[in-house]
Amino acid sequence: MIKQRLFTPGPTDVPPEVLIEMAKPIFHHRTQRFKDMFAAVNEGLKKLLFTANDVLTIAGSGTAGMEAAMSCAIPRDKKVLVAQGGKFGERWVKVAKTYGLKVDEVKTEWGTAISPQTVKEKLATGDYGAVVVVYSETSTATACDLKGIAEVVKATDALLIADCITAAGTLPLKVDEWGVDIVASGSQKAFMLPPGLAFVSVSPKAWAQVEKITPPNFYLNLKAYRKSLAANDVPYTPAVTLIRGTQVSLDMIHKIGVEKVWARTALLARALREAMKAQGMSVFSKQPSDSVTGIVYPEGVEDKTFRNKVLRDKWGASVAGGQDFMEGKMFRVSHMGYVDPLDTIGLVAAIEYGLKACNVPVQIGKGVAVAADIIKDWA
Amino acid sequence: MIKQRLFTPGPTDVPPEVLIEMAKPIFHHRTQRFKDMFAAVNEGLKKLLFTANDVLTIAGSGTAGMEAAMSCAIPRDKKVLVAQGGKFGERWVKVAKTYGLKVDEVKTEWGTAISPQTVKEKLATGDYGAVVVVYSETSTATACDLKGIAEVVKATDALLIADCITAAGTLPLKVDEWGVDIVASGSQKAFMLPPGLAFVSVSPKAWAQVEKITPPNFYLNLKAYRKSLAANDVPYTPAVTLIRGTQVSLDMIHKIGVEKVWARTALLARALREAMKAQGMSVFSKQPSDSVTGIVYPEGVEDKTFRNKVLRDKWGASVAGGQDFMEGKMFRVSHMGYVDPLDTIGLVAAIEYGLKACNVPVQIGKGVAVAADIIKDWA
Repeated sequence: MIKQRLFTPGPTDVPPEVLIEMAKPIFHHRTQRFKDMFAAVNEGLKKLLFTANDVLTIAGSGTAGMEAAMSCAIPRDKKVLVAQGGKFGERWVKVAKTYGLKVDEVKTEWGTAISPQTVKEKLATGDYGAVVVVYSETSTATACDLKGIAEVVKATDALLIADCITAAGTLPLKVDEWGVDIVASGSQKAFMLPPGLAFVSVSPKAWAQVEKITPPNFYLNLKAYRKSLAANDVPYTPAVTLIRGTQVSLDMIHKIGVEKVWARTALLARALREAMKAQGMSVFSKQPSDSVTGIVYPEGVEDKTFRNKVLRDKWGASVAGGQDFMEGKMFRVSHMGYVDPLDTIGLVAAIEYGLKACNVPVQIGKGVAVAADIIKDWA
Repeated sequence: MIKQRLFTPGPTDVPPEVLIEMAKPIFHHRTQRFKDMFAAVNEGLKKLLFTANDVLTIAGSGTAGMEAAMSCAIPRDKKVLVAQGGKFGERWVKVAKTYGLKVDEVKTEWGTAISPQTVKEKLATGDYGAVVVVYSETSTATACDLKGIAEVVKATDALLIADCITAAGTLPLKVDEWGVDIVASGSQKAFMLPPGLAFVSVSPKAWAQVEKITPPNFYLNLKAYRKSLAANDVPYTPAVTLIRGTQVSLDMIHKIGVEKVWARTALLARALREAMKAQGMSVFSKQPSDSVTGIVYPEGVEDKTFRNKVLRDKWGASVAGGQDFMEGKMFRVSHMGYVDPLDTIGLVAAIEYGLKACNVPVQIGKGVAVAADIIKDWA
């Protein structure tokens, strides 16, 4: 009789309104009905990203979206700067290398992110055709200064490609105002959907580059999606059910207002961080993302016992573990999408119970009170 | 993006496992398939009530179950004692009068319940053929000593009919061991189902009385249900979808264990009471039921603002108001069925926010910490 709640940084919980919509019978995608629905979804996506750019919807994961962007838009004659401060930065280096691109991997310590200054210095050499950054690096729960980086990149000929998979719809992001050329995101994060869709916005500056490159692939060829999009259509069979859910979830988001959603996410993130600090715990990141919070385990906490046996199985709260060298050393909590104040307050109690079950001396209720006090300002 | 949670003392939240089962296509009820399912449900109901008695399933509300019991089993030649300490006691008086029974309405102050001693004294006169009590009077959030009352009644020829609508599956109840002749309950409470079914257990002693009475009605004629039950069937078209859901919910309950469910409910109730006391609030009942808690509003709290605008619309927590002369003066919270620890901790925060929004000076987090500390012992 325990309710299961996802606090993992993807997948996140899906609202019943969306689940019900997706339970409806399939209809054919080569129809006006599909085009009408897709047109509405495309408008909603643009509004969410504050952009007039094309936003392409690809049946695939966020990785498919990033691969489409990187493989089709990064100039071949210049270097690509890939910021790498975690598992996803690492992945984009691999993608770039797969396509034989000239990669300059700029590493930062886990828990930190590349600075606009570093990007500026690199681009000043004139050697770069594109910059790839991760706005919210999920593995380290760290956000970079995307706005600052965009300001630097847009003054050059280089393209800025941002992995916004756990950032779009949750961290402040104004694509046109900031000048982010390509933004890729995924459905199972702030969009409150199951996994299965990637959303990719492409600026005119990026399209100009895409035009110069012979497509190195077929399914992830951005141009094919752009051509179909002009007729509110898709080149290959779309995931109709997921797109149907997207229409409902976007309506829900826009009813509240995107900027309000950002503020709410930030408040929940702050509540968790402060509650954890009140219990003597430390936040892993030096530049914490409000999408996801990474908390370092105190001495003696066994990760699997804490997360699976206690939090998930006993109290119904699923959180993620650490990755790579932080595996077993931290846990990560999502604040994205369909997670609300009462959930978050309950989660803090579950974390306190988990720590106690792992013999960490905590005063049950101390963190919960701190979280409740911060969340009172939720509007 | 607020999750809606029902803390009302019926309806209560329904688990997704049950909702999914009920979403499956209809099948015909005059089939072996239905009989097999119904047999399993009947076994589950007996196990939940700790009884070898017949448990009848009626498509109707809990009121239908009580009316069936009262109209078919209460001897016409003697008086019926109806304990009345709230809206439901009041209703059973009305039902008894509707059928022309000789009603002795024994009133107790709201927030208290009839004692075994009072029942004993009344029955000593030899004038009574039946006693009707409400185990958990939902309107006043008050429980009577059903075990003590049963001990008194079973020593006589009188029947004990207990409204266990908000008690079965949530308060301790051992029908055979205690000797409760008729128990009526409803699906939308601890059974974790939508409204629409009444469950009525009938003892051999009660059947003997039923046999002596000419049925005064048709649809609610207990004998018709008994006759069909012998063949794992029902006399009139059953609510197949709800019975289907019942099979799943009973399996969930029995997987945990009925007595463990009682203990969990009691813990959540205690957590709420203590959290409220820590905030200077008072519990309405002098004999609080663990199924539902009634909390008296402090001066100046406007009921509809508190419950609807703040708790429900802003924080996603639905609670019930007071009834009759307590309307606008208290609110009531259910601990039955599919409500869990994290829900309850979150609810306490929502109540604190609600009080603050109504200008009651509360220290946000104080009650939440108290609740979290009590709930840590949940097992």
